[in-house]
Amino acid sequence: MHNPDPTQSPRATRDLTAGEVLAPYLHARAADFLRGLRQHGESGADTSGADEAAGTLRAAARRISGSLHTFRPLLDTAWADQLRTELAWLSGTLAQEQACTSRLVRLMDALNRLAGGPGPVPAARGSESAGLTVGAARAGALLERQLTLARTRAHSAALQALGSSRFHALADAVALLASEVPLGPAGAAPAPEVLDASASVARRRLLDAVDALPLSRAAHPYNAEALALAGENQDAPWHHTRLLLRLHRYATEVTALGSEPDAPLYEAARALDRHRDAAEAAAAASAAARTPRIAPATAYALGVLHADQRHEVEAARFAFQRVWHTAAVPVP
Amino acid sequence: MHNPDPTQSPRATRDLTAGEVLAPYLHARAADFLRGLRQHGESGADTSGADEAAGTLRAAARRISGSLHTFRPLLDTAWADQLRTELAWLSGTLAQEQACTSRLVRLMDALNRLAGGPGPVPAARGSESAGLTVGAARAGALLERQLTLARTRAHSAALQALGSSRFHALADAVALLASEVPLGPAGAAPAPEVLDASASVARRRLLDAVDALPLSRAAHPYNAEALALAGENQDAPWHHTRLLLRLHRYATEVTALGSEPDAPLYEAARALDRHRDAAEAAAAASAAARTPRIAPATAYALGVLHADQRHEVEAARFAFQRVWHTAAVPVP
Repeated sequence: MHNPDPTQSPRATRDLTAGEVLAPYLHARAADFLRGLRQHGESGADTSGADEAAGTLRAAARRISGSLHTFRPLLDTAWADQLRTELAWLSGTLAQEQACTSRLVRLMDALNRLAGGPGPVPAARGSESAGLTVGAARAGALLERQLTLARTRAHSAALQALGSSRFHALADAVALLASEVPLGPAGAAPAPEVLDASASVARRRLLDAVDALPLSRAAHPYNAEALALAGENQDAPWHHTRLLLRLHRYATEVTALGSEPDAPLYEAARALDRHRDAAEAAAAASAAARTPRIAPATAYALGVLHADQRHEVEAARFAFQRVWHTAAVPVP
Repeated sequence: MHNPDPTQSPRATRDLTAGEVLAPYLHARAADFLRGLRQHGESGADTSGADEAAGTLRAAARRISGSLHTFRPLLDTAWADQLRTELAWLSGTLAQEQACTSRLVRLMDALNRLAGGPGPVPAARGSESAGLTVGAARAGALLERQLTLARTRAHSAALQALGSSRFHALADAVALLASEVPLGPAGAAPAPEVLDASASVARRRLLDAVDALPLSRAAHPYNAEALALAGENQDAPWHHTRLLLRLHRYATEVTALGSEPDAPLYEAARALDRHRDAAEAAAAASAAARTPRIAPATAYALGVLHADQRHEVEAARFAFQRVWHTAAVPVP
């Protein structure tokens, strides 16, 4: 990590007020949100169109919400807090369906890899392999049933949310945001000073969270940390770091307008996404194993799958610590 | 790996015949064997003494057998082949009991690590963890039953072997070897020339076997190669390399008398031992999961355990490739 001169800000923001930098960013994200909403209305029975629209909506909601959080001191705080609550509700509701889909894909890919790919069991494989293949097929069917049901429920919940009066009030608030941002008094202060102060709080929180992670342990490949119960209990700080890293990235989108995105930081974020996805997939495998009256072969395959995904968690921690050291996050 | 001048041999062997170098080594190993045998007879009900004596016997048998194989061209080949067959029978028989013990220890350690250590389940742990802890306890009891039974059988087989007339004939042959080595015509040739030629055949076989291993794949941590079925089918070349590395190490004990043992080579050998042990432990977990009428929670814990040990296999491959590059095995 390098530590550039903290008085240096992108040239374009030098002579503007904080509000003049933040408002266009929020206008643009609000416009994204409304575009996603329009696309969703037009998608009808086209599920890939609806998925894309939901993705656009969620990405815009995350960025608006993150900016309201990070730059709260510049804003009308009562308004910002209320809008953030509503955006969090929407994002959470919309995220479930996609999460079920990607969890199922991740678990099916892992089962295929573990059991040696789809298709019939080659005769050359011994009884051990055949046993895992049979168990894996049953485990796959069980997971597909459970996660498809969860996805259907999430889909209904999302449709219900998008038709609710709560959502219409939120959409109205975002529509207003597309043209007007309710600033507080600090919004009139010079941009570098006030924006940087808020952004460095976000950066400080991220750096503190990363400092608290067991990175030197994660740097040892095959430390077998994540599979043990103690490792599972350690997931939370990594998940929290993932959210703080996202807030930092969104803050840099506001303050470093037009500069190149930081590739290692993006890689670090992807490693933490993978960490979260693998942890949730492992939990889904574990939950499926608690289904009453399953065959031992199914439970065995779910145990293998659970351990496989916990090793993915460990691998993601390894990947994160490796890329983090190359990420340019200036110390505030 | 460096490539020293192949005409350089340890000074002490320069002016001797091959037989004059090989015979004292075989005399000493035969004496070790007889000492182990005497200890075993004296150990009576002292199991740790009996284990130590069996270890001494096996180590001596492996070294005699390895030397007879590598330096076969210098020896009376009919005699050497016959003695090797008998030593292999004895080593194989004696190895089983120790293998069962260490497999059980390895699996119990892994279960304790996975389930968060022995003792009662802390209330703070969720139902997921409690489920694994219960399953792990049952899986542990099952493995203990199965491996203790196997160990008892192996113990009886070893006692029977040591009391057999086949063993007494072998002990007589080794007693003769302690004072006289049946050499062939090449035994009278100068030591550097003939010993090096035999030792380099062993070295060449080892290097070829290592070249054929997927080392660049193993160098990527978390490649998830060993857990997949394709990975299990790939164990054999690693096991074979382990045996060739042992033959090479024993050959250097003969040719490089008095020089320091090569630490990286020893580490590489230990990585391959760990590879073999983890692969066999994984197979034992898998076999236990095929016990009829086990509870799904037990099968689940055995699946986690199997995957954990297959990751140990992957970790051992990673460790081997890392240390191998620092090992000084001259290219013949």
